[in-house]
Amino acid sequence: MYDRLKGFRDFYPEEMGSRREVIDTMEGVAARYGFREVGTPALERTQMYVDKSGEEIVDELYTFTDKGGREVALTPELTPTVARMVVAKQQELSKPIKWVSTRPFWRYEQVQQGRFREFYQTNVDIFGSSDPAADAEILAFAADALTELGLTGDDFEFRVSHRDILGGLLSAFDSDVDARNAIRAVDKRAKVDETEYMRLLESAGLTDSQAQQFDDLIAAGDLDAIAEFGDEDLAAAVENLRNVLDAAEDFGAGEFCSLSLTTARGLDYYTGVVFECFDSTGEVSRAVFGGGRYDDLIESFGGQPTPAVGVAPGHAPLQLLLQRAGVWPEEELVTDYYVLQVGDTRPVAARVARDLRATGNVVETDVAGRSFGAQMSYADSVGAETVVIVGEQDLENDEVTVKEMASGEQTTAPVDDFPGDRDAPTYDDYA
Amino acid sequence: MYDRLKGFRDFYPEEMGSRREVIDTMEGVAARYGFREVGTPALERTQMYVDKSGEEIVDELYTFTDKGGREVALTPELTPTVARMVVAKQQELSKPIKWVSTRPFWRYEQVQQGRFREFYQTNVDIFGSSDPAADAEILAFAADALTELGLTGDDFEFRVSHRDILGGLLSAFDSDVDARNAIRAVDKRAKVDETEYMRLLESAGLTDSQAQQFDDLIAAGDLDAIAEFGDEDLAAAVENLRNVLDAAEDFGAGEFCSLSLTTARGLDYYTGVVFECFDSTGEVSRAVFGGGRYDDLIESFGGQPTPAVGVAPGHAPLQLLLQRAGVWPEEELVTDYYVLQVGDTRPVAARVARDLRATGNVVETDVAGRSFGAQMSYADSVGAETVVIVGEQDLENDEVTVKEMASGEQTTAPVDDFPGDRDAPTYDDYA
Repeated sequence: MYDRLKGFRDFYPEEMGSRREVIDTMEGVAARYGFREVGTPALERTQMYVDKSGEEIVDELYTFTDKGGREVALTPELTPTVARMVVAKQQELSKPIKWVSTRPFWRYEQVQQGRFREFYQTNVDIFGSSDPAADAEILAFAADALTELGLTGDDFEFRVSHRDILGGLLSAFDSDVDARNAIRAVDKRAKVDETEYMRLLESAGLTDSQAQQFDDLIAAGDLDAIAEFGDEDLAAAVENLRNVLDAAEDFGAGEFCSLSLTTARGLDYYTGVVFECFDSTGEVSRAVFGGGRYDDLIESFGGQPTPAVGVAPGHAPLQLLLQRAGVWPEEELVTDYYVLQVGDTRPVAARVARDLRATGNVVETDVAGRSFGAQMSYADSVGAETVVIVGEQDLENDEVTVKEMASGEQTTAPVDDFPGDRDAPTYDDYA
Repeated sequence: MYDRLKGFRDFYPEEMGSRREVIDTMEGVAARYGFREVGTPALERTQMYVDKSGEEIVDELYTFTDKGGREVALTPELTPTVARMVVAKQQELSKPIKWVSTRPFWRYEQVQQGRFREFYQTNVDIFGSSDPAADAEILAFAADALTELGLTGDDFEFRVSHRDILGGLLSAFDSDVDARNAIRAVDKRAKVDETEYMRLLESAGLTDSQAQQFDDLIAAGDLDAIAEFGDEDLAAAVENLRNVLDAAEDFGAGEFCSLSLTTARGLDYYTGVVFECFDSTGEVSRAVFGGGRYDDLIESFGGQPTPAVGVAPGHAPLQLLLQRAGVWPEEELVTDYYVLQVGDTRPVAARVARDLRATGNVVETDVAGRSFGAQMSYADSVGAETVVIVGEQDLENDEVTVKEMASGEQTTAPVDDFPGDRDAPTYDDYA
């Protein structure tokens, strides 16, 4: 007996049915916004991730040398891949480019609740617009996806921040500050104790009092005060954040957004607005997912300067939130008809099954040569709503028996009129 | 600029749209037969494939040692994984177990037409029935999937064979013959010249005249003659193949099936009926896909003896067949509405877009702050059927403009009555 790898999951039909419903809902919302599906490889060159995130990223990648001597990695995220795809066809693609896809990614990480080594995300991105409406459309898509899944404004909030506000404030304190490390410190603010947080800010180049003042400013989140604190770039960043929040209001996502400058997002490539989705009750303690603007990535990949913004809900943390809120879809197997064979009636049973399938019904029939009782029990186990019994004796009278499983009631129907011109015949049609 | 790995593909939206339609069609047919979706990992232990297929399989796998020291492989096929999953829950799963899934697999192979290193398959399997009806249901699913995709009986045929007939015949000639290698020789029959084919049969233990007589028998395909040639096991295999073809007839797949004992399938784990789908015109020269019965695999994986039968259409060779037959779906981007903003009309435009999306329409609006002309051009590029122009001047009259893109005709509509209670308002509703 072989074991499954740690951090990888098998999804049997009931659980897969729930996951499929969530995926279909999110992709359906994305489609209504005009996001178009793309398909992407599971392997890319390791160098792409090293260039983007530094050598240390390799520690959490599944990397190896392929049989052709290439250094490759199982894709740990989608963004570099879609950036590569935009660069490869940047002349032909009409902008804004709006893409969606759902697929697994892989990271060699510690396995914990809501975090696996193979994990699924729905990535939604807009390339080619720096307009605040693009950021807002990403927020609006995410809000619509969550409400379509059954969540309400009481269940979640988007904490919205801005990298250039954090960066502008930091350089207003000290133009030599290591903004990248200071922003990483902000990202750890809720995860480490205050002493450690201050130490991280100080090691990025702020003095003790600067660190405290910086933190007071971002914690208070008074945008007017912040805009006055720095130069015109900082004021522009504040203005940009306000414009995004205004547009989000227009797009119907305003009620889910709150200003939170202590939100920073871990990834280095973000440049403007960033946001994280949190469980309002705090029961799911980590960010459920996040997103933001990454205007420099395409150019750093060798493309024309192309602004970009996106979000990538991970399905495992999202499942925790949906379960906490009591709206995780518990799927049962659904079968419209089980066509039961008694005796040598397969030609007729098969014809009935074919006719019922032709109008889109989910139909099973015996493929195991089993007894009446075993077939009934199987029909029950797959949740059959109606069982059509095709028995030798009934057929002598040119009839089949139609049994409604919920009530147990049954009646006969002329075999030549089953299903007749009915798309989905029931017991009631013949009783 | 980074390059994509050889044998891997990026699917941009148009091509992805075609592929998605094919996948949805196949999965829809599988759903109507009561096959239930499962989700499976991309990585498994390498040993699982070595045990099943021998050390030489490693040459075509993407294998590596993970950071925890595990020897792992990117899954080259689904069958071992679903066999593992059946073994893991064999007591709880009600049988027959009917599973479907569509996903990529990976093999380090020579890249050629219709063959990539990352390739997609829809796997459909039945576990727990040795009845000929199970084999026939697999054939019927495959036939229905292909006809639903637009193919007819003139386009393809299923060449149906039986491993135990080949094996039984071989042992009737010589009980010491190496049946595995002889069957591999049959699998190569159409790919090598006759001298080489005969040499392969002889190296499996047949004499020159036995090899010739064996080939004459399987090429003639006279089941009565074959049944008389060997022992009762051979006669039973012949009877089983006849029963499968009878059941396929009942299930509506008879017209697509032809007896072809020179079909053998390459994989060693098949035990009973095997079949391959071929392009009737021969233009696609290799088998498009294949399937068959593998009754011993679950037991060899440490499970209770569990018969199994399945098929796995690969999407790349299937695309060649669909294109050859002229039924490959050429997808264009579809957009129901583009809501065009002129001036500062975003609040109204956003409300209109939201209302139209609420009834399931695909709706885009400006997220790039672009001009009238640029928006019109974009609306055209995404195939918008209707453009709703929300302009400052129109709004002063409480109106929007509704433009039908195909005809170029336009009219105005009261903004408060757009869309009103219409699910999908058109120019005609207001003209």
